[in-house]
Amino acid sequence: MSIRVGVVGGGQLARMMIPAAQALGVEIRVLAESEGSSAGLAATVVGDYTDWETLSFFAQEVDVLTFDHEHVPTRLLERLVADGVAVRPGPHALMFAQDKALMRERLSELDVPLPAWAVAADTHAVEQFLAEHDGVAVAKTPRGGYDGKGVRVVNTPHEVGDWLAAGPILLEQKVEFVRELAQLVARRPQGDSATFPVVETLQQNGVCAEVVAPAPDASPDIVAEAARIGQAIAEALDVTGVLAVEMFETASGQLLVNELAMRPHNSGHVFTEGAVTSQFEAHLRAVLDWPLGETTLRQPWAVMVNLFGDASNERIQAALEYSPHIRPHAYGKSARPGRKAGHVVAYGDDLDQVKTLARGASEAGRQH
Amino acid sequence: MSIRVGVVGGGQLARMMIPAAQALGVEIRVLAESEGSSAGLAATVVGDYTDWETLSFFAQEVDVLTFDHEHVPTRLLERLVADGVAVRPGPHALMFAQDKALMRERLSELDVPLPAWAVAADTHAVEQFLAEHDGVAVAKTPRGGYDGKGVRVVNTPHEVGDWLAAGPILLEQKVEFVRELAQLVARRPQGDSATFPVVETLQQNGVCAEVVAPAPDASPDIVAEAARIGQAIAEALDVTGVLAVEMFETASGQLLVNELAMRPHNSGHVFTEGAVTSQFEAHLRAVLDWPLGETTLRQPWAVMVNLFGDASNERIQAALEYSPHIRPHAYGKSARPGRKAGHVVAYGDDLDQVKTLARGASEAGRQH
Repeated sequence: MSIRVGVVGGGQLARMMIPAAQALGVEIRVLAESEGSSAGLAATVVGDYTDWETLSFFAQEVDVLTFDHEHVPTRLLERLVADGVAVRPGPHALMFAQDKALMRERLSELDVPLPAWAVAADTHAVEQFLAEHDGVAVAKTPRGGYDGKGVRVVNTPHEVGDWLAAGPILLEQKVEFVRELAQLVARRPQGDSATFPVVETLQQNGVCAEVVAPAPDASPDIVAEAARIGQAIAEALDVTGVLAVEMFETASGQLLVNELAMRPHNSGHVFTEGAVTSQFEAHLRAVLDWPLGETTLRQPWAVMVNLFGDASNERIQAALEYSPHIRPHAYGKSARPGRKAGHVVAYGDDLDQVKTLARGASEAGRQH
Repeated sequence: MSIRVGVVGGGQLARMMIPAAQALGVEIRVLAESEGSSAGLAATVVGDYTDWETLSFFAQEVDVLTFDHEHVPTRLLERLVADGVAVRPGPHALMFAQDKALMRERLSELDVPLPAWAVAADTHAVEQFLAEHDGVAVAKTPRGGYDGKGVRVVNTPHEVGDWLAAGPILLEQKVEFVRELAQLVARRPQGDSATFPVVETLQQNGVCAEVVAPAPDASPDIVAEAARIGQAIAEALDVTGVLAVEMFETASGQLLVNELAMRPHNSGHVFTEGAVTSQFEAHLRAVLDWPLGETTLRQPWAVMVNLFGDASNERIQAALEYSPHIRPHAYGKSARPGRKAGHVVAYGDDLDQVKTLARGASEAGRQH
């Protein structure tokens, strides 16, 4: 009888856990939102993860429960834990990935470097924060944002009037960064952790578009500091599974934490071919409390470029025609403008060549 | 609407096509022999592949039909082809992988080097072959043998009396070889082919136990001759998908073809981590008539060792505990002494180290 891992959410992250689960010989079951999801191959329940009956029925049939996303209400996860379900990461950790204000409060206590921030409940508080920060701020809804949604750069309180009507918002200093980095850490319940190489991420319209591993020209200090921050957060918050820490690098060489995710992350797709162990296998090994794998890179450079709009059979064929070295990943989604539908990875010794290859393949056969 | 690939047979080869199909964004459907098969995750039909109704129902629902094994009767495949099903490899090629005597007849016509052989219908013919070959021969049943089954080394006709009662048998010269090699070639219907590096295979009791890629100390002549033989057979027999050619290397540096398989093969498992493109993805890209991938190695050496008996959760954990560099592959099978239940791969710059690593991991936690 094989160990059963249950994944809440049927998106591409759950989809890409399937090959890892298969290789490890563990059974993977997915609670999908709808029929025909990305991870539909492993879907054993289709239903609403915010419905207690659906969620608890699914959880009872698995040995460990983990996630494709952070949206399961904490109170339901706490009930599961009380019922003896192994929820990894646990709600006591996941709450900090769900609520951006709570996360900043906790990381400030831990002396993790952050952009200046405040929670504002009314226009007066917004005015005050703007006055203290050169008249500009990044406003965020504390919950539910992703891929640039729930984020606005503002100069006046009335630009967030609609959000304030619904509740307090988070305000952050608009950091003048030179680039964005991401640090992935996989951590077991018993405490061991494994740190992936820090990567550089390029966003387009607030969405991750390209990732370079390792982050080019990163100083040994930056590399060490990124790993230290990642491990410190994983440890202090008792994260199990993969933790992704998105960071800004400033001109003065400081790292400031931007966001957290407690699951495999777009910035880690590059490791499937790029590293000895993929982030999906690392996540599963971590939530299973199994020995963690080697996370070093297999070659000097690896670059991931997202496929937006579609990853149709025709587009993947065009990418493969473009170069026999390209590694394609389609997410099994229908086409929609701007949608993350897949990604390609290239790797090798020469960063410029590898970038050109991955970008060229991502453009080949593009329809949307 | 995604292209659908149908795989007849639910064994580990079909199982390991699932991640490749998923990455390519094609739908994979499996016709499995029974519930709970290795490839059960993708099984859409469970039934008897020798039953026309079952097979044709399955074939009608896919865009291209391929195989986990060579056991589907040719006459059924010919009916499918007549009905317009894209069967790859087609029965006109597959018949040579199904019948060892037919294969030798055809390869002899093509001047492919083979051990001396004959078909014997009675004890007199066996006696004659033995007399001509120093009193020893390798006897094989023309059909249905695998993993050492259907093969006997014989010195007298009565050792194959039971087989002769059922029909003619194949006799082969017992070759004094220095080692065994395997050459994999992937070929598209339009004719393009891609050749993997030739590998060395080690058998235990007639079963593949270990594979080293590339074959150590292979002369450029041997490498070129192995590739030439693989390509010549793929071309002449019009194979589509992966063709595996098992060969003997003699002391004089000659290559003699031993057996053929027209599907991914145990000798090619090493390429999942070892090469840019896995044999499973190469097979799918070939049968889809898509651009073939790069088949070169990603590092100097890769070694695969089979896990016999079981690949239980405990054994895989023990292998991972043994080294964080080990790449595990469990087949989702119940334990049975001697059964191929999984494999591990290690890779790196130093062959001795890589071998030690893979062998050590395969022994870790061994129960059977």
